[in-house]
Amino acid sequence: MEILEVYRERVNSYLEDYLNSISPDNSYQSKLKNIMKYSVLAGGKRFRPILTYTVANLFSIDIQKVDSSACAIELIHIYSLIHDDLPAMDNDDIRHNQPSSHKVYGEAQAILAGDGLQALAFEVISSDELIDSVTKVKLLNLLSLSAFKMAEGQSIDLSIASKEVDIELLNNLHKKKTGSLLNCSVMFGAILNPTISKKDLSILDSFSNHIGLAYQVQDDVLDVTTSEEILGKRPNSDSVNNKPSYPSILGLDESVKKYESLYREALDEISFLSIDEKPLTDLTVKLMKRSF
Amino acid sequence: MEILEVYRERVNSYLEDYLNSISPDNSYQSKLKNIMKYSVLAGGKRFRPILTYTVANLFSIDIQKVDSSACAIELIHIYSLIHDDLPAMDNDDIRHNQPSSHKVYGEAQAILAGDGLQALAFEVISSDELIDSVTKVKLLNLLSLSAFKMAEGQSIDLSIASKEVDIELLNNLHKKKTGSLLNCSVMFGAILNPTISKKDLSILDSFSNHIGLAYQVQDDVLDVTTSEEILGKRPNSDSVNNKPSYPSILGLDESVKKYESLYREALDEISFLSIDEKPLTDLTVKLMKRSF
Repeated sequence: MEILEVYRERVNSYLEDYLNSISPDNSYQSKLKNIMKYSVLAGGKRFRPILTYTVANLFSIDIQKVDSSACAIELIHIYSLIHDDLPAMDNDDIRHNQPSSHKVYGEAQAILAGDGLQALAFEVISSDELIDSVTKVKLLNLLSLSAFKMAEGQSIDLSIASKEVDIELLNNLHKKKTGSLLNCSVMFGAILNPTISKKDLSILDSFSNHIGLAYQVQDDVLDVTTSEEILGKRPNSDSVNNKPSYPSILGLDESVKKYESLYREALDEISFLSIDEKPLTDLTVKLMKRSF
Repeated sequence: MEILEVYRERVNSYLEDYLNSISPDNSYQSKLKNIMKYSVLAGGKRFRPILTYTVANLFSIDIQKVDSSACAIELIHIYSLIHDDLPAMDNDDIRHNQPSSHKVYGEAQAILAGDGLQALAFEVISSDELIDSVTKVKLLNLLSLSAFKMAEGQSIDLSIASKEVDIELLNNLHKKKTGSLLNCSVMFGAILNPTISKKDLSILDSFSNHIGLAYQVQDDVLDVTTSEEILGKRPNSDSVNNKPSYPSILGLDESVKKYESLYREALDEISFLSIDEKPLTDLTVKLMKRSF
């Protein structure tokens, strides 16, 4: 099995076990758990956990020590998707090829499922007995800051619908909305290595910021060029919601050039890491070539 | 100045300073911050932080070490109010005698303000340099579990509207919805004392569960008997939303007896603490006599 598939299956099974463990199974109390499980276990690329596993593995961190961080990142990501899909936000009815949480359970329960998932992201790390307290506090602090910036980014994103914006604002907003959680995914792998050098930390930080922006520009491009079936959600969502996007400001060709050059910059950076960066290079190249 | 007023002013000023510190002030980026500040600084009894300060002070914990915990508890509480007031939830237009967040900023920004506040509750503790890492992890773990249970409680609460429920289910739901955060407020004060005895911990845990339930029964009673002006929100919200409440199941007189007896049980328990419990007794008596 390909290594990315190994990571994907690993985080899937950790997520399922964790969600099953958190609340006793009885008719009323397990309701929110089931709503959370509907969205968490619906699939998805698990790209953020894969990044965390890949970076941690560069430094030979015991994979069992990485599970809770990988799980936490994905819980935050899924909570953000549930809230983003709400009628008051992007109003998307389909996510991962199934009806969005609010379409199945109603808006109130979908909001609460997102709220519960955010809380659990902090629970899963803070209760992990394999990680020392100093490291846990670093992970939890970065996670909380990243989750806050993500909400700030979404707030800015919603406030600029139908407005003329420049590329600087768009970069700035996506650095928060998408970039902060991708930065967190990469830095989690780095923080789990308590002896990492300052130079490696700084390379990975910069790498994550470049792929974070690249990923978003690419998302905007794919949103215009890919079918609903492959995306697993409604395409053209930016133009439907009158949101400024990279293609709408730069044009499609320039947008493709932009994300490719950002990925190449990221690849160039990690060649200076003190350890063998090949697995991370492979993942980045795969990402650059993704079609959904 | 009365000690409760000292605590209230202290947490108010800590909350304001903290929110001002977390994000640079520029037109787009400060938007979510201002939305959060609107709700956080609107006032409120600050009962949860006051509990944390009062319990920590029983054990002579340096008050500066208590600030971040007191602030975190209130941030979670305010986020839950913003989300509870949403049209999809309890649909309340007035909170703390001012229009609810979603009435001023729209549903999307109100949801995001709640989301951001939850993230910041974990940030404020994890970044507090006055507290050691082992204690921080304990605080963060309890906070995450309590925040999750609170969301679960609200989920159950919404699912039983217009249904026949028994008193056991109502107790169980409020233990989560209101009780878990009150338990957290009390236990924060206890956890901040690293040398607390198991007996004191267990007394405070039981005390907090009793006042948690008492507080909710009393809230249900006040919801029926108090004017909008004094409540600072729409009265009779349970019956408007067809929610089962203690008065609707037990009747008003029995409900008053129930919360008074729960408070008395709580008062009895803390008389067995190893330290002078008088400040906590005074607070509990005050609570029992509250009129809003």
